[in-house]
Amino acid sequence: MATTYFSKRNLQFLLHEVFKAEELTKYDYFSAHDRETFNLVLDSATYIADTLMHPYLKDIDKNQPELKNGQVTVHPKVKEYLKAVGEAGLIGAGFPFEHGGQQLPEMISSCVGFILMAANNGMMYTGLTSGAAHLITSFGSPELSETYVPNMLAGTWQGTMALTEPQAGSSLSDVTTSATPLPDDQFGPGAYKIKGQKVFISAGDHDAVENIVHLMLARIDGAPKGTKGISLFVVPKYRPDGNGGFVDNDVTSTGVYHKMGQKGVPAMHLTMGTNDDTIGYIVGQPHQGLPYMFQMMNEARIGVGMTAAAIATAAYHAALEYAKERPQSRRLNQKNLLDAPQTPIINHPDVRRMLLFQKAVTEGSLSLLIEAARLYDISEVAEGGEKENAFLLLDLLMPVAKSYPSEMGVQSVSQSLQTFGGYGFTEDFPVEQLYRDIRITPIYEGTTGIQAQDLLGRKMTIKGGKAPQLLFAEISKLIAEASTFDDLKPYADQLTAELKRTQEVMASLMPHAQKGDIERYLSDATLFLEMFGIVVIAWQWLKQAVVAKQLLLTQNPQGDDLIFYEGKIHTMKFFFHYEVPKTLGLAVRLKDTEVLTIVTEKELAL
Amino acid sequence: MATTYFSKRNLQFLLHEVFKAEELTKYDYFSAHDRETFNLVLDSATYIADTLMHPYLKDIDKNQPELKNGQVTVHPKVKEYLKAVGEAGLIGAGFPFEHGGQQLPEMISSCVGFILMAANNGMMYTGLTSGAAHLITSFGSPELSETYVPNMLAGTWQGTMALTEPQAGSSLSDVTTSATPLPDDQFGPGAYKIKGQKVFISAGDHDAVENIVHLMLARIDGAPKGTKGISLFVVPKYRPDGNGGFVDNDVTSTGVYHKMGQKGVPAMHLTMGTNDDTIGYIVGQPHQGLPYMFQMMNEARIGVGMTAAAIATAAYHAALEYAKERPQSRRLNQKNLLDAPQTPIINHPDVRRMLLFQKAVTEGSLSLLIEAARLYDISEVAEGGEKENAFLLLDLLMPVAKSYPSEMGVQSVSQSLQTFGGYGFTEDFPVEQLYRDIRITPIYEGTTGIQAQDLLGRKMTIKGGKAPQLLFAEISKLIAEASTFDDLKPYADQLTAELKRTQEVMASLMPHAQKGDIERYLSDATLFLEMFGIVVIAWQWLKQAVVAKQLLLTQNPQGDDLIFYEGKIHTMKFFFHYEVPKTLGLAVRLKDTEVLTIVTEKELAL
Repeated sequence: MATTYFSKRNLQFLLHEVFKAEELTKYDYFSAHDRETFNLVLDSATYIADTLMHPYLKDIDKNQPELKNGQVTVHPKVKEYLKAVGEAGLIGAGFPFEHGGQQLPEMISSCVGFILMAANNGMMYTGLTSGAAHLITSFGSPELSETYVPNMLAGTWQGTMALTEPQAGSSLSDVTTSATPLPDDQFGPGAYKIKGQKVFISAGDHDAVENIVHLMLARIDGAPKGTKGISLFVVPKYRPDGNGGFVDNDVTSTGVYHKMGQKGVPAMHLTMGTNDDTIGYIVGQPHQGLPYMFQMMNEARIGVGMTAAAIATAAYHAALEYAKERPQSRRLNQKNLLDAPQTPIINHPDVRRMLLFQKAVTEGSLSLLIEAARLYDISEVAEGGEKENAFLLLDLLMPVAKSYPSEMGVQSVSQSLQTFGGYGFTEDFPVEQLYRDIRITPIYEGTTGIQAQDLLGRKMTIKGGKAPQLLFAEISKLIAEASTFDDLKPYADQLTAELKRTQEVMASLMPHAQKGDIERYLSDATLFLEMFGIVVIAWQWLKQAVVAKQLLLTQNPQGDDLIFYEGKIHTMKFFFHYEVPKTLGLAVRLKDTEVLTIVTEKELAL
Repeated sequence: MATTYFSKRNLQFLLHEVFKAEELTKYDYFSAHDRETFNLVLDSATYIADTLMHPYLKDIDKNQPELKNGQVTVHPKVKEYLKAVGEAGLIGAGFPFEHGGQQLPEMISSCVGFILMAANNGMMYTGLTSGAAHLITSFGSPELSETYVPNMLAGTWQGTMALTEPQAGSSLSDVTTSATPLPDDQFGPGAYKIKGQKVFISAGDHDAVENIVHLMLARIDGAPKGTKGISLFVVPKYRPDGNGGFVDNDVTSTGVYHKMGQKGVPAMHLTMGTNDDTIGYIVGQPHQGLPYMFQMMNEARIGVGMTAAAIATAAYHAALEYAKERPQSRRLNQKNLLDAPQTPIINHPDVRRMLLFQKAVTEGSLSLLIEAARLYDISEVAEGGEKENAFLLLDLLMPVAKSYPSEMGVQSVSQSLQTFGGYGFTEDFPVEQLYRDIRITPIYEGTTGIQAQDLLGRKMTIKGGKAPQLLFAEISKLIAEASTFDDLKPYADQLTAELKRTQEVMASLMPHAQKGDIERYLSDATLFLEMFGIVVIAWQWLKQAVVAKQLLLTQNPQGDDLIFYEGKIHTMKFFFHYEVPKTLGLAVRLKDTEVLTIVTEKELAL
């Protein structure tokens, strides 16, 4: 088992040296905190990760949840873990004091998630609970909050997001779960009878908690068709009986999916209303379910991105450890020295290239995700133009912050596995598990294809393209800063060229959108997302390099710090020399006028 | 379970219409055959694949081999399958009549492997047996052949390749298993006492056969160091007792690896000589083990490439089937028609792009592998310059034919899985298994890094670069042919540009080799392999398109044939528009003068 699964030094660098987390404490909402309280929370997460999570990485994978007699049993350590994170205040880290939270920035609480998921992503329970509880505190009545949130944040009740249905995966407008209003005097105001099915509900049932609280999308009888007729409900496994007790709410665990990875968390198929006795409590206003969900989407997608970055980071550190220890062959310039001992494989350029690729992808991803979390925080607590701009920029970056860490994370873990050679394919090392685990992340919370349509189809064009203008202005500011350092200038210039390339691609695509041919406009949207993602991560790497350079010049660091900053600049260069050139081919295809995705089923099948 | 796992039409197209398999029958060795006997063998393989393999795909995965009381138990269907392929003559398909074979070309027998592995790659037993038997018939004494080969080809004895040792993975020069000569009168001439350990021995022990025959590398006492002191031995699990019976040969199953995929085949850790009683019988001359092995390497690597192409093909057909049936959302230009039924996902451009990518990768891979098998056949049976050129060309193409199908196959199956959305991650469909299975192929028989060093470090330069000259001449011939068709001419021109780009890259790399700085010369060899692979597959696609075009013009095909040929030309275009532009970025990096793979351990670790 690898002993290191993330770099504390790198997390400190990003949070404090690059993104200056403490600056957020100038806003009233975060004013109770400082660098020290931020770090205390991260230490507390690390302690739980070290003691209650990482040691059970394999064990969780080997003992997947089973459904027996209508009840799902999960690994016994899950309960212990949930209790510990609840007691440490980590589930409610981002919640306001009034709800029992710590009122910490998303910058910090998303990094808590990063640490926990790097230790053992098979214990992915608490992000779901805080997401669900956040929907209640944001849009639900005070009564709903009182009834459900304290136990959720304590880790004794589980929260879920119950969106997907068998016939409606990515298409939420086709949700058919029904909600029939009940008279106020029966189950109190806002109660509905719920009937329908949900699939792929992560943590949708298990025995490590006393209750499960589903935040469920359903359609009130007679509601408008499509996305405008969907409402949000709290549907608990056990509902209050009105006398201080709880009764079964007729939510049946119909099945548990057996998955390739993330086996520690049950993905449930649930049936509501088998005995016509499932009650749901409306959250906020009728027909506002999707807008509510979408307001939570950025937070949820930061969570998925963090999970992907965390898994890839853990795999990278495992590969690095192995590469330092495993002797194999002689160096390429000393092939004939048969008497020489074999050299650790880290001395082979191809292995170093694989490791640098992993470092570039994982640290670039984490940097972007912390940037996104920072924008999220500002969009929540700032005012006026600052708030609006942060929100626009966050919205634009979100498809990248969700899909780059997941898509490139899959490739990064594949390179971690390759570093191990044949051993990587065996259960003797953790990478085969991480390779299976991470593969769900390009699917969770909107597949990469959906993210691409969101980016090109909405975020690039809303408000007359104001969001990309803001981003380009941000990037240009950094380019100006980087250009003042001789050795960073070539990379600043390269990034300028990438911005120009991106604009050219947009210019060649826009006429399709203007003509209303959205299918043509979006036909290569996934490639656009890939290209845009490389540019965005290049920006993040140049940003890290500028900070490292400034610290090298002003602080005269020694020892590990010196090496760390030099390593940052080196990895930035690697990213620009190996990853950025990929935009060349992508741009050629994106500007290409020949449409090739029109093809018949038979042409594909024969 | 997907009902189609490969396209018979495509296999017929490649074998007979593109590569004209029957032309091989002009050589004496293959003269007993014709198109009909070729197809009969393929039909026989398809029957076994349909009835004894494909139905057990999941079951084989779910019931992995276990080691108990020193004996490995495998799925009961393995025995039935081995008997059937043995009786059908498929294990010995490529062997000469004198050894009980069918004297079929590798073109046909490798396609037999393709069909079997597409059906169920968890039953990957017979390719190992025929490879091992081939070593015996090629280099061993007649006595060894008589003793071992008939039972191996009958499927009642298993063959293995026993190369890898715990301390010597990719570095065969560090093999330490020892061989001590024995007097001729004890166990007959050529007997040695064997002592050592081997790891990752596929099918290294199991209960579906009566004996296991290891073709094992070991070092005779006092042999020269390095690769020049390694010899090849037959080391059976049960050895002849000299009286017509067999006795235990002290080969201990020390452990069975638990793997991420290909779970049907046990990967064994074996110990020889625990009781100082393991006898090995030398194959051919002492110290010639590695040259013998390397003469078999092309065949073995075609086998790995075929396995990868087969797995990716099965995943593609599963994804295609699902995409035709699964309704989700409306077409992008009809998003607001809420009353319209959902459309099958194959109608979304992004899904069609994913499917075309899979078709382009899998059919391009299969085409190259059949090309390689054809060259193998000619290099075996032709004479003089024809033989030599075929061998040189094969040798050059081999690193690509092994690594392109495996590396790009991994990506292709990932896109198959993505086509299924969340369902792809579950055990309800076969893709999650295929995703796990195929991941070993970039590691088997020399990792991608090793293939890259082989290509750039040897094959591009031996005999003054004669091999790439031959390839470029072949490609230029095809370009000339393609240029005669108006609609293929742009692609012929594009391929010309790619040849030029490849030459420029070589020109910029060569000075490092000439200076003897091999480490620098090979530092980005894997990227060179990737770029070279794209060019080679582009050649294969243009070749297929030319044949399709010719048949469209001369045969006036109707119905499915018309659609099939048009689909071929369409997919060629897809490959040129989406995949070929990737060489742009790769060439930029390869011509880049800045070395970035020099980095310290600490820079990576902190």
